[in-house]
Amino acid sequence: MDELNQQLDFIIELDKLKGVYRQALVKADKNRFENSAEHSWHISLTAQILHKYAVENVDITRVMSMLLIHDIVEIDAGDLFAFSDDADLAEQEQKEIDAAKRIFGLLPDKQFNMFNQLWLEFENAETIDARFAKAMDRVLPLLQNMRNEGGSWARHNVTKSQVLKRNQYLEGLAPQLWHYVCSQIDHAVKQGWLKDS
Amino acid sequence: MDELNQQLDFIIELDKLKGVYRQALVKADKNRFENSAEHSWHISLTAQILHKYAVENVDITRVMSMLLIHDIVEIDAGDLFAFSDDADLAEQEQKEIDAAKRIFGLLPDKQFNMFNQLWLEFENAETIDARFAKAMDRVLPLLQNMRNEGGSWARHNVTKSQVLKRNQYLEGLAPQLWHYVCSQIDHAVKQGWLKDS
Repeated sequence: MDELNQQLDFIIELDKLKGVYRQALVKADKNRFENSAEHSWHISLTAQILHKYAVENVDITRVMSMLLIHDIVEIDAGDLFAFSDDADLAEQEQKEIDAAKRIFGLLPDKQFNMFNQLWLEFENAETIDARFAKAMDRVLPLLQNMRNEGGSWARHNVTKSQVLKRNQYLEGLAPQLWHYVCSQIDHAVKQGWLKDS
Repeated sequence: MDELNQQLDFIIELDKLKGVYRQALVKADKNRFENSAEHSWHISLTAQILHKYAVENVDITRVMSMLLIHDIVEIDAGDLFAFSDDADLAEQEQKEIDAAKRIFGLLPDKQFNMFNQLWLEFENAETIDARFAKAMDRVLPLLQNMRNEGGSWARHNVTKSQVLKRNQYLEGLAPQLWHYVCSQIDHAVKQGWLKDS
């Protein structure tokens, strides 16, 4: 019963991710800010739909699990805009490591280890699964912005080179998606949604 | 490229589920209504954490996929409160079947078939995987309401027998969870959050 209570405390703690808001906008809901819980749902499904474009073998079960948990640390650390200063990004990294320990630490040891390791694998982005998961986390905002007149890019003066760099995981891993992304970025520059630098 | 465009249209269509609001309340975000996208994220993780309580073998990958997609039909059909009239529930069923055809139909044939069949399996609740998925969809609102002074129950005069019936998938499938749920329901009656009938 103790284990069950630990698990239920963790499940209830997750509710808080629904109150962590990102810079991305939800066009379908009056352009309000998107929260990290619904974003995690969306990229998990995106990965399931697109994983056949990876030229190496992706374990989609592990990728989906990674994507479902990858933002849970934001319950403590908050969301930081992808194109923030390097110093802010470095500080965020330590906050997230501490958050992972506290939040996954609500679970029994075995599940704590499983989730904490999966999250670290995602963060380190060295395995194929983690790199594909990162790519999905990064390509979805591009798709959303392209259907929303630039969305969060336009509001923050984001540049073409920033978005190219951010989506570069796709280059070797899923060339067809990379090709698509490059063509979309060119289109965004022409539309004035991304700065040409 | 045509297949990719179909898949991207589907992925963008999913954004709309973030604007479908349920009766459940998000205590951690000023008690606003919960949307069906973040709810789907939450129950997918809940299933992953609790599936070992099932006394029969559950394929957690299939269960998680089912839970990620189970509410997509609400983009067209809307959400109907769980404890609505039987006539309204029957009408909703047909709306959801039509919605599944249109929305999953945005995808290439192979993925349309996969998602449509998985959704129908969930709806029919005959397999172990589908029954466990349904149980997770139903137990999470109970957990949320118990930590929120009755939450959506208290607002809608829901009764003990309605909640017992709704959670009955757990009875044979995960007795330890069923036992917990029964004790929580008794506590909710004592607190006045559920009507004793």
